[in-house]
Amino acid sequence: MKKISLLGATGSIGIQTLDIIRGHKESFQLVALSAGRNIEQVRKIVAEFRPDLVSVQEKSDCERLRAEFPGITFYHGAKGIEEVAVYDQAEILVNAVLGSVGLSPTLKAIQAGKTIAIANKETLVTAGHLVMGAAKQNNVPLLPVDSEHSAIFQALQGEQSKNIEQLILTASGGSFRDRKREELKDVTVKEALNHPNWSMGAKITIDSATMMNKGLEVIEAHWLFSIPYEKISVVLHKESIIHSMVEFHDTSIIAQLGTPDMRVPIQYALTYPDRLPHPAGKRLSLAQIGKLHFSEMDYDRFRCLKFAFDAGRAGGTMPTVLNAANEAAVSAFLDGKISFLQIEELIERVLDQHQTIGNPDLETIQAVDAETRKSVFSLI
Amino acid sequence: MKKISLLGATGSIGIQTLDIIRGHKESFQLVALSAGRNIEQVRKIVAEFRPDLVSVQEKSDCERLRAEFPGITFYHGAKGIEEVAVYDQAEILVNAVLGSVGLSPTLKAIQAGKTIAIANKETLVTAGHLVMGAAKQNNVPLLPVDSEHSAIFQALQGEQSKNIEQLILTASGGSFRDRKREELKDVTVKEALNHPNWSMGAKITIDSATMMNKGLEVIEAHWLFSIPYEKISVVLHKESIIHSMVEFHDTSIIAQLGTPDMRVPIQYALTYPDRLPHPAGKRLSLAQIGKLHFSEMDYDRFRCLKFAFDAGRAGGTMPTVLNAANEAAVSAFLDGKISFLQIEELIERVLDQHQTIGNPDLETIQAVDAETRKSVFSLI
Repeated sequence: MKKISLLGATGSIGIQTLDIIRGHKESFQLVALSAGRNIEQVRKIVAEFRPDLVSVQEKSDCERLRAEFPGITFYHGAKGIEEVAVYDQAEILVNAVLGSVGLSPTLKAIQAGKTIAIANKETLVTAGHLVMGAAKQNNVPLLPVDSEHSAIFQALQGEQSKNIEQLILTASGGSFRDRKREELKDVTVKEALNHPNWSMGAKITIDSATMMNKGLEVIEAHWLFSIPYEKISVVLHKESIIHSMVEFHDTSIIAQLGTPDMRVPIQYALTYPDRLPHPAGKRLSLAQIGKLHFSEMDYDRFRCLKFAFDAGRAGGTMPTVLNAANEAAVSAFLDGKISFLQIEELIERVLDQHQTIGNPDLETIQAVDAETRKSVFSLI
Repeated sequence: MKKISLLGATGSIGIQTLDIIRGHKESFQLVALSAGRNIEQVRKIVAEFRPDLVSVQEKSDCERLRAEFPGITFYHGAKGIEEVAVYDQAEILVNAVLGSVGLSPTLKAIQAGKTIAIANKETLVTAGHLVMGAAKQNNVPLLPVDSEHSAIFQALQGEQSKNIEQLILTASGGSFRDRKREELKDVTVKEALNHPNWSMGAKITIDSATMMNKGLEVIEAHWLFSIPYEKISVVLHKESIIHSMVEFHDTSIIAQLGTPDMRVPIQYALTYPDRLPHPAGKRLSLAQIGKLHFSEMDYDRFRCLKFAFDAGRAGGTMPTVLNAANEAAVSAFLDGKISFLQIEELIERVLDQHQTIGNPDLETIQAVDAETRKSVFSLI
């Protein structure tokens, strides 16, 4: 029985993680969770899974739930998330929160010796060196949940890093793959949220449309697999069937394939290095699909991907700025305050203004993150 | 330095194996080899690689070479092949001979504790239970060289057999992929030898055109990976870029990809579990290729594949008959004695006549093999 803490239980990845736990009651137990303000959902989850520990965002919600579920411990706020992250009964923490807010609890959980299943890519983008350094120091495995990184992780089983020629991330192209740049001027939030293959949260769906999602994944891959940026490439693959690949120096490529279903990589992180049957998974039939398409990535069309490679190579606080500017800009777009193309314009301006600070500590990262968000909002 | 014996040095796989050894002089040394009647080629190989031991088919060739290369030991005939197979200086035997003639030296090499890199699929088809039994008893690894089996073997690294849902072999479709059955009546040997993707020997190229090659591979996969026939499937994939796949029970599929170059799987068998750079390998660019195609296998169009599944499931001496009948029929086709479609007609007739003998020993297999060839020739 693997005991699991889950950060971000009511988000898209959180809900799918619960689905996996529900499907394998003999193998997994949810012992702690955090959520935001969706208290109706929290109620249902608590009633079904009976965790020991629950943290929600608001104090008032916390108090109400405490009265409703007497046997269960409730917390709230940032302190509450950390209690869930370090809960001593859990052996694995699934970090499925959104944005760089996931950084601090991840570091705390690593220090507490938890295995981390990381769906929260912003944590690695904003402070990869801190997270990987802490994981190494505490001898804690960091297991990818993103489908691309899970694919690479699976492809690397039984292999040696020294033999890697390159990591090849596949990109679906997102909601606007087939539109030219000039056709993006007036796209609506609703159009942007219509991803062709994956069912995901709003922020990551917008990130897919701008291709920033792939950019964040490039930086995430750099940290997770200790691979220099020259050895990471991206190929357009509109069907999202090959989830990513590793090329070795003998020219052999190992790829992981499947239907686009986030529950597969989530489950793999929970069962690793073993596998369990997928409770409700749809099997892939290549004959039924018939064709897989691949094409070169156009860095002029998808400028955010170029920003990410550049920020990754610059290092220091530059990826923190990239990520914070993106979070702020996407949030402004979702709120209807800026147009779609302004997302990348804002990110570019803020990146251009920033002088990178080498090897930043947690405080510096948090300060740069906060400043960057302020800069973005001041430009709107 | 890995010391290598090579059976079938002047064939297609043999020549490519020499290419790999030549490209990695720091890692590999050829210490023994066998060849047939291509003495000009043997001379060149011996002069370049200076092995300790060489076996050729004819006594007269053997004596001539002995006079020309005083420091080197020469043998001939079946006895000579066995001397090469068990040569005590070699740690790995690459078995690249053609046909079931490879069986006996393989068994001898296994008994002598050699690691076997097996390109000679007929050996496993005709006597898989004997070969795998001997390998298990002597704790000797059997490493696949066939591109499909190497792909599966690579995909299985770091994985557990219990989690396998199925092995998926890809098939290019061979020289006549796009022709209907009725268009095959009058095809010539030359047309049949024109494989769209792979440069291989004559027999295997014909086997590709009849799809018997895939059938033999199904039986080979059954034995190499201890997987029942219900868990082996074949998908048409005309580009031969995905060399084969493993589906696990969590719906995840691991595939191995690359340009069609037999030197990659040959080298992997020699470097396993490590990898070395490919001395002259062409890297795969999926973006350049653009599309990969997949479709269902048509068992009425490719009847040999059905024969192979049926013979494999029947077990006992049935796969021996399948293989011997195929070897005899292909040889008759290459000699211009029968038409292309008669290959499968002859195989079918001989299979229909045979009463399978369960768990046959080596003598039984050799007797059934010889009888089958006789039957085929009597039917021509």
